[in-house]
Amino acid sequence: QTDAPRDSQPAKRDTARTPAPRSRAWYERLSLRGYTQVRYNRLLETNPDLTCAQCDRSIGRNNGFFIRRSRIVLSGEVHPRVSVYIQPDLASEANGQLHYAQIRDAYFDLFLDSAKTLRLRVGQSKIPFGFQNLQSSSNRLPLDRDDGLNSGLPNERDLGVMGYWSPPTARHRFKVLTDSGYKGSGDYGVVGLGIFNGQTANRAEQNDGQHAVLRVSYPFQLPGGQFVEAGVQGYSGRFVIPSSQRTAGLNAPREFDDRRVAASLIVYPQPIGFQAEWNVGRGPSFSREGTPTIREEHLSGGYAMVMMRTKPGSHVLTPFARGQYYDGGKKLDTDARHHRVRELEVGAEWLPFSAFELTASYVASDRRTSDFAAPDAREQGRFLRLQAQFNY
Amino acid sequence: QTDAPRDSQPAKRDTARTPAPRSRAWYERLSLRGYTQVRYNRLLETNPDLTCAQCDRSIGRNNGFFIRRSRIVLSGEVHPRVSVYIQPDLASEANGQLHYAQIRDAYFDLFLDSAKTLRLRVGQSKIPFGFQNLQSSSNRLPLDRDDGLNSGLPNERDLGVMGYWSPPTARHRFKVLTDSGYKGSGDYGVVGLGIFNGQTANRAEQNDGQHAVLRVSYPFQLPGGQFVEAGVQGYSGRFVIPSSQRTAGLNAPREFDDRRVAASLIVYPQPIGFQAEWNVGRGPSFSREGTPTIREEHLSGGYAMVMMRTKPGSHVLTPFARGQYYDGGKKLDTDARHHRVRELEVGAEWLPFSAFELTASYVASDRRTSDFAAPDAREQGRFLRLQAQFNY
Amino acid sequence: QTDAPRDSQPAKRDTARTPAPRSRAWYERLSLRGYTQVRYNRLLETNPDLTCAQCDRSIGRNNGFFIRRSRIVLSGEVHPRVSVYIQPDLASEANGQLHYAQIRDAYFDLFLDSAKTLRLRVGQSKIPFGFQNLQSSSNRLPLDRDDGLNSGLPNERDLGVMGYWSPPTARHRFKVLTDSGYKGSGDYGVVGLGIFNGQTANRAEQNDGQHAVLRVSYPFQLPGGQFVEAGVQGYSGRFVIPSSQRTAGLNAPREFDDRRVAASLIVYPQPIGFQAEWNVGRGPSFSREGTPTIREEHLSGGYAMVMMRTKPGSHVLTPFARGQYYDGGKKLDTDARHHRVRELEVGAEWLPFSAFELTASYVASDRRTSDFAAPDAREQGRFLRLQAQFNY
Repeated sequence: QTDAPRDSQPAKRDTARTPAPRSRAWYERLSLRGYTQVRYNRLLETNPDLTCAQCDRSIGRNNGFFIRRSRIVLSGEVHPRVSVYIQPDLASEANGQLHYAQIRDAYFDLFLDSAKTLRLRVGQSKIPFGFQNLQSSSNRLPLDRDDGLNSGLPNERDLGVMGYWSPPTARHRFKVLTDSGYKGSGDYGVVGLGIFNGQTANRAEQNDGQHAVLRVSYPFQLPGGQFVEAGVQGYSGRFVIPSSQRTAGLNAPREFDDRRVAASLIVYPQPIGFQAEWNVGRGPSFSREGTPTIREEHLSGGYAMVMMRTKPGSHVLTPFARGQYYDGGKKLDTDARHHRVRELEVGAEWLPFSAFELTASYVASDRRTSDFAAPDAREQGRFLRLQAQFNY
Repeated sequence: QTDAPRDSQPAKRDTARTPAPRSRAWYERLSLRGYTQVRYNRLLETNPDLTCAQCDRSIGRNNGFFIRRSRIVLSGEVHPRVSVYIQPDLASEANGQLHYAQIRDAYFDLFLDSAKTLRLRVGQSKIPFGFQNLQSSSNRLPLDRDDGLNSGLPNERDLGVMGYWSPPTARHRFKVLTDSGYKGSGDYGVVGLGIFNGQTANRAEQNDGQHAVLRVSYPFQLPGGQFVEAGVQGYSGRFVIPSSQRTAGLNAPREFDDRRVAASLIVYPQPIGFQAEWNVGRGPSFSREGTPTIREEHLSGGYAMVMMRTKPGSHVLTPFARGQYYDGGKKLDTDARHHRVRELEVGAEWLPFSAFELTASYVASDRRTSDFAAPDAREQGRFLRLQAQFNY
Repeated sequence: QTDAPRDSQPAKRDTARTPAPRSRAWYERLSLRGYTQVRYNRLLETNPDLTCAQCDRSIGRNNGFFIRRSRIVLSGEVHPRVSVYIQPDLASEANGQLHYAQIRDAYFDLFLDSAKTLRLRVGQSKIPFGFQNLQSSSNRLPLDRDDGLNSGLPNERDLGVMGYWSPPTARHRFKVLTDSGYKGSGDYGVVGLGIFNGQTANRAEQNDGQHAVLRVSYPFQLPGGQFVEAGVQGYSGRFVIPSSQRTAGLNAPREFDDRRVAASLIVYPQPIGFQAEWNVGRGPSFSREGTPTIREEHLSGGYAMVMMRTKPGSHVLTPFARGQYYDGGKKLDTDARHHRVRELEVGAEWLPFSAFELTASYVASDRRTSDFAAPDAREQGRFLRLQAQFNY
């Protein structure tokens, strides 16, 4: 009987499956790596009441040293057709307490052809909306993402199924742009298309409908070798603001339209680079007109950045300047608080060797907010930001 | 002086012990592996009010994509007499928030003889009560365990000390049954005996007494090669329903008898298999007779399943059908809610290669529940379940 | 153009940086190890009302088996000038629920010279105050640290920047003392100097000032080979007792002076050892004099211990006896509860092989406490403690 197990078969593990022989050792199939960011934001601070919860909770009064991210990535090509990516953040909050491990990414790629041109990505992963959202925080020059595009996808991720199409040339260029130190986003396809819950990462779905996203982006290479990436993207869905996220007594609908379109342009720093993104759309926003409530309102915002990649000796030093603007609601804030942000950041990232980098930037910020408790608030100020990042 | 340290001794690590030289590299002593399950339960749904908190929180209204489990196992034979097994789940809830890392298993096996026949298992581990409780979720055909036996040990684990006796033939067969893809439970001994806190996994002990468990199970091999496993098991203890788990104002005792016995029969799928388990016992249950309260009541339930393991090409496809029944309280529900469950599930697991499997099943369910807020509730419905599992 | 990426460059990873070629495999740069402690404290117990929240929550009534620590360390020398150390504890509480993964250490060392004499340690790490605080719990003989010095730094760690100076001879001896099984602290420098938030590990900063710490410690080697380590240390800062940590209605200041100095003497067990530490200082403490409130008060306390390292056969057996005393407030307790502790512990650690150790100790304890709810409480009792520790 051919189906009977061979009694002489080697048996290595008690409590988990070994459905097929694995020729490679586990540490050849899987690998660990990660990075951690430690920050201090209080030097040269002119206004301790200026804060930005979406950016970094350690900005402003009664703050000090802060671990912004502590990531460990377990990843690998576990089969010619399957790769996995599990990334917890060890510095996540749990109900106001600090430094718990919580998932950022937990997905697998299922390649539909042997050339890996077409793949499905299943699980919690980054939603392809915005270059700076897709780029790893370990690579970004400014310490925080821009309010404009990131307010569409705080934590950048959601749970669902994505399809990516990456023809060989583009796929190769996406890799070069990451590996070369040009701070690419990695390969999110020339075309990316997906559906996802829509309440953002690590939050339970709240309605019966899914969000949908579509992105087209291409990394062109000019004759001199210069890389230029241009992309357009959009998402649409219905977003729920749960009662726990509203001021008690505020009368407002439960669900809102949540849709945006954005354009991205990246001229990679060879050695001078330029990067700009802009998005417009509609979403929930606190509104103090008439009866205060949460309404679907227009939003718009983005940023423009210049940077220069220099190599003094074996070091890499990258000065940058970014201006950003956002006018709209933030769907994860209490009452979908309305924001009007104007901010300029000038700084430099210094990479003395691959395992360690130090970023310093000086920020001038003007943040006007409106919610039920404070319908007309505004804080302006300047401060120096410091970040030590170690890569492992 | 022989006890003085040799000053020339190699010294590798700063802050942890190296009590003895270790000849093997760390990655030869320890290994990482795991699996993640992503689900969608809303297709062909006839009744969005039908839910099952113990099974899968993403069944029913306002749900979507869901990570049911995301496991990483760190394990290894760290000494000829000691093996360790640490398994966090990265998709655990913490106070209603999603995707935190929480221990499932954290135990070591201390082998009392060099043939590894006898061992003590110390820490949080699966309690040997029920084959389907012991079998890894990565191997189970239906998406969730049966309500009947699993309601005795939600999360299947507890904290204590177990003793297992596995004579060589049985030990070898337990391994074969796992490694061959027949979906065995792994080696929980021919005899298993233990004491444990009794409040189930990741819950603090609430009284001064321990639960005790005893299980006897044997994997017979018939002349044609067919494996048949038969087992009996039981546990007994006093269970506490803390005040946080009761409706305010419900007057009921704090502690309850909690004891069950069960029988298990598994005919492994070579290629056709059959599996059935049944348990009876007493435990806390909401009772609406007379003054509503929580009483010690009789409970009974189990399941029967048929399956067929087929191998079209290099794939493995395993259709199955399971019927289950449970009548009794659930000790981790509010007010130890009473349930009467009748459910039929028909589906198939498709394993195109070892790293990825897809399961689809169609469920017809009839769930009647009774607690203080809803003493007589009943939901009936049918729905399609989909699960993508990736193994790494 | 020299800055253009070579299109033929090997490209391995999609979503993270590879800023420089790495010649070593990941598992040669990084390693995993850890240890887990399982305890039972209820045998021979004379008073179930005697508890010690700072020590071990499973002492006293309604407790049973308990995982005190479950650690995984990811560490490595990722660059000749950078080493990293990430250590979550998998058995941490989150809002009263058990067994979540939370950071203990997350730091990197940046070596300022090639001989590694001078280094900066950035992130969350142990604060150099007290030998027993710095020594790993996997090496400590008594099951819990002393109340005296540990009440200054519960969880031993904080977030900040430390500088350590370790000349080669001392650096070598620190390693020998750890690797040899003499239970050294590891290398925290001959001189350690640092600033940190001051609210202790995993707690958000609450004011605008930092704590500062200074420690000087030297491991002398006597002519016969005997090692003797002597150290002095102190810290100072302003500590905030947040409103969530006070009995409602208790009127008290928000911030308090928090400063201590301590002396340490360790005669390593070759084979007989002796260890003593003492600290004095000022800090917040509940005071029932006059109007009950929290005041800055004097505190003092420490311990003395004798131990003997014996090697019957290939085993290591280390009997020990420790007496400890503390009189002062505990800054993380409700109302900075005042304690007066007298405790004697006699026990032995048995290490049959490197992967497993068993500790048994008998404790006689007298704990008098004072807070708003119970201004004059006292519990006295004796109990046997058991701990199984597995190292991996």
